[in-house]
This record gives sequence, C-alpha cells and structure tokens, in this order.
Amino acid sequence: MNIGIVGLGLIGGSLGLDLRSHGHYVIGVSRRASSCQTAMAIGSVDEASVDLSVLAIAEVVFICTPLGIIVPTVEQLITFLPATTVLTDVGSVKLPIVQAVSSLWHNFIGGHPMAGTAESGIEAALRNLFVENPYVLTPTLTTPKSAITVVEGLVQQLGSNIYFCAPEQHDKAVSWISHLPVMVSASLIAACVDNGDLEVLQLAQNLASSGFKDTSRVGGGNPELGVMMAKYNRDALLDSLQGYRNNLNQIIDLIECENWDKLEEMLQFSQSNRPGFIKD
Amino acid sequence: MNIGIVGLGLIGGSLGLDLRSHGHYVIGVSRRASSCQTAMAIGSVDEASVDLSVLAIAEVVFICTPLGIIVPTVEQLITFLPATTVLTDVGSVKLPIVQAVSSLWHNFIGGHPMAGTAESGIEAALRNLFVENPYVLTPTLTTPKSAITVVEGLVQQLGSNIYFCAPEQHDKAVSWISHLPVMVSASLIAACVDNGDLEVLQLAQNLASSGFKDTSRVGGGNPELGVMMAKYNRDALLDSLQGYRNNLNQIIDLIECENWDKLEEMLQFSQSNRPGFIKD
Repeated sequence: MNIGIVGLGLIGGSLGLDLRSHGHYVIGVSRRASSCQTAMAIGSVDEASVDLSVLAIAEVVFICTPLGIIVPTVEQLITFLPATTVLTDVGSVKLPIVQAVSSLWHNFIGGHPMAGTAESGIEAALRNLFVENPYVLTPTLTTPKSAITVVEGLVQQLGSNIYFCAPEQHDKAVSWISHLPVMVSASLIAACVDNGDLEVLQLAQNLASSGFKDTSRVGGGNPELGVMMAKYNRDALLDSLQGYRNNLNQIIDLIECENWDKLEEMLQFSQSNRPGFIKD
Repeated sequence: MNIGIVGLGLIGGSLGLDLRSHGHYVIGVSRRASSCQTAMAIGSVDEASVDLSVLAIAEVVFICTPLGIIVPTVEQLITFLPATTVLTDVGSVKLPIVQAVSSLWHNFIGGHPMAGTAESGIEAALRNLFVENPYVLTPTLTTPKSAITVVEGLVQQLGSNIYFCAPEQHDKAVSWISHLPVMVSASLIAACVDNGDLEVLQLAQNLASSGFKDTSRVGGGNPELGVMMAKYNRDALLDSLQGYRNNLNQIIDLIECENWDKLEEMLQFSQSNRPGFIKD
C-alpha cells in the first residue's frame, strides 16, 4: 500500500519504520528539508519531500504534525488528493480535530497512538514504538466503514492494542489520565517554590527524593504541550480539574477536622484503586 | 562503641548492618522475637532481645520504631539507662517528637535519615542504604553539644549527606516535598475513579501510561503512613495544601479565562524550577 506521512517527528518517523517493515511504500512530507534527509537516512521513508503534492499517489495519509497545525495541513493537503484517499491523524485531542477535519474530508478517521519517549524529533524515531501500547481510533456515525477497516488493519500491523471510542470519550479519558496529571504536577512544583520561606525551599530542594521526583515529572514537561492540551481539551480538563479540586478539598477538610479514620479510608481507596490504572 | 537499636525494620536493620561494619557492637531490640532472629541471621546486630533492659550498656540508642510509638518506647527505655546514654530517633516528623522526647531525656537529638526502598521490614535491610542520602539532624538550643557530636560522627560513618536544622524547618520542608505529594497524588487517583462515568473510567484505566503511573505512585502508598504524616505534621501539611490549592486555583482560572500566555508562563515556571529538586 502507498502510505503518506505528513510530519516527520518521533511519531511520524516511527510509523514509517514499522509500516515499511510490513512492505508498504512510505512517502514522507516535512516542512523541513533536513527532516526529510534524516528520515531517508534512517530508513523511515522510501521517499521524502517538503511538497505535499507528492502524496497524490498515497492511499492512506497519516497526519503527524503538532496538534495546532493538523487542520491547516489538511486544508492544504486535500487539494492534491483524490476522494478515495483515507486520512487519519495522531493528535492527542480528538473532538475538535475530528469535527474540523470531517467537515473538510469525508474519508477520515481520527486516531491517537499513545506511545512516546522522553525524546522528540525524527532522530528519536524507533522501531516497534507502538507494540502493546494503546492506539485509540475515534470513528463517528459518518465515518466510512472502508476508512475504519483500512486504518485498523495498519494499526494492527503496528502491534498496538486498539481501542474504539467516540472522540468525546477519548478526550475525557485522556483528560483524567494525561492532561490532569500535568496540571496537578505543575502546581506541586510551583507551590513548593512559592512557599515564601527561602530557607525552607533550600532545605526542601536538598531533601527531595524519588517521591517528589516522580510526582513532579509530568509537571516539569514541555510548557507548549501543556498549553496545547488545555486549549484543545479545555472543557474535559476543566471538569477533571474541578473533580480533582473537590477531592483535594475533602482531604484538606479531613485533616483540618483531624478525622483520621476517614482520611485513612480515603487513602485506602486510592491505594486499592491505583492498580486498575497500572499494567506492570 | 556499644550502640542500641530499638525497632528492627528496614531502617533499624540497615543501620545495624552499617554500624557493625564500622566496628561498633550493635544490640537490637524488637517487640517480635522473629525480627530478633532475622536480625541476627542477616548480621544486622551482634545480639538481639525483646527486652529493652539489654540496652543498659549502650552508649547511643537509635529509636527506629514507627512514629506513633517513639514516645512510649522512650518512656519505657529510659528506666534502664544511665543519664550519659545518648538517644536519637529516625522519625519522619520532628517537632512533636523532639518536644516530647526532650522533656523526657536531656541527652537527645532528633534525626531523620531520608532513605528507603519500596520494601519494609528487617528482611529488606540493606548495606549502604544511607550513602549519599540526606540525614537531617535537628538539635535545639538545649541539646548537649556532646550528643550532637556523637550522633553526627556515626551518621558520617554511614556516608550520608548531613543537614542540620530546627525541627520546625525540617517539618515544613518534608511537608512540601514528601507529605504534600502524597495527598496530591492520592487525590488524583480518587478523582479519576470518582469521575462518574464508568465507560470513561474503563477507557482511562486502559489508556493510563507512565505519566499517570509516576504521578500516582506516592498516592497509592501505605494509608497508615499517610495518616501518620498528616497527624504528626498537621499544621505544616495544611499550610502546604493551602498553598498548593492556591496554585491549582490559578491554573483553573487561567484555563477558564483561556489565558494561554499566562498558563504557558506558569508551566514554564514549573519546568524551570523542577531541576532544583532533582539530583540526577
């Protein structure tokens, strides 16, 4: 199958490596000539170009650009495509993307491969990045069955665990387990620094160990990504933040009232529910 | 030196291993005969007993019991000791312990070795557990210089990074970097489970990955320990929780007002400040 990839970063580059290893002919497009060259050099694509028109021969195109430029990219891309081309994207928020792209191109299914590393860029591309990781597909009532079948087949070749759900459901779920933790964790770092006592801050910095390190990790990540999550998944994230604040307020109240039995119950609830989210 | 250790768990057992390797004669006391036997078997002590009176010959005694029984243990122990014996403890909260024990025994200095593993109990005892980890000592204006010197010397032999501070400062610092993260992280798990939509919960559980795993780790820990922190360090923890809630409220407001520039600034602040807490 002729497969196009627009956006040659970690995800696009890794997709190319795996899809080529299954015998597909992969055509990559990047705005940067240097990414095209690297993608060729590491074997991520069969050909690469800075020009979207090379994708006219692709049967399926994966849009792997940053979230903010998926829709403008599709607007440009579709001027070169026959109506039979299947489009899919890998954006981490689905509802606004699916709504906007579906109105531009009928033959589209939203997707979100939930895999990554601490690195980014084409240089970080890896074989088998998606194996046993979740890959969410978000068809709607109007998504052509043929588009679902084609993309599902390719994702199966990647070895991912495929989940189908509505775009709204995806956005709510990732709000809880991915976007909320970023805000919770960023607030933790900021609150410690803002505590108002420099001696305490210095001591805290010296004493911080693995517990603080783990809890603060995602809050210390890329600020632009954090804003993107909040911008595109605003409603779901606000719901999660308010639910979270309610829980936090309960904990604060229990400690204020010295209701240690109920606090222990709440901590037991958290302890017993954590394994449901953790695979290994 | 003859050194007593009351409480043969991970910390007491590991202290014994290291202190014996520096040539000290280590006498262990546990309420459980089985812990005494294990401590002997793994070489953590030279002799062990369930009877505190064996510590009459110790020059220094480390109280390594759970936080809640440090004071009653000291009350019993001191009936067997000459006034020259130096006492120290390893409790994770210092002000209430230091206040109570100082009034019982003049020759006392509070301490807190900040080291551990996911395991607990004497079976988990390790050599070199304290090497390059913080060990906080919290003398007060009335702590005898000789007691400070003796305990500081032993802690140096453990290879720890020693920090001296007032008990209040210790408690504030650990509230920020250890006790607050537990509550923040426990609230995250509870809020996700309480979200009210079972389909979203199930999807969230399937999609949760390393970000959620790390942010939720300390919140899924031992509930009794969490309550103990809150109980003994209540005032400092409430301060931290309120400071944290203020920061969280700011983030919620910025997302509500779609003030993306200011949100990015806040996330940049967190990103740039995290390395100050992280050693490796």
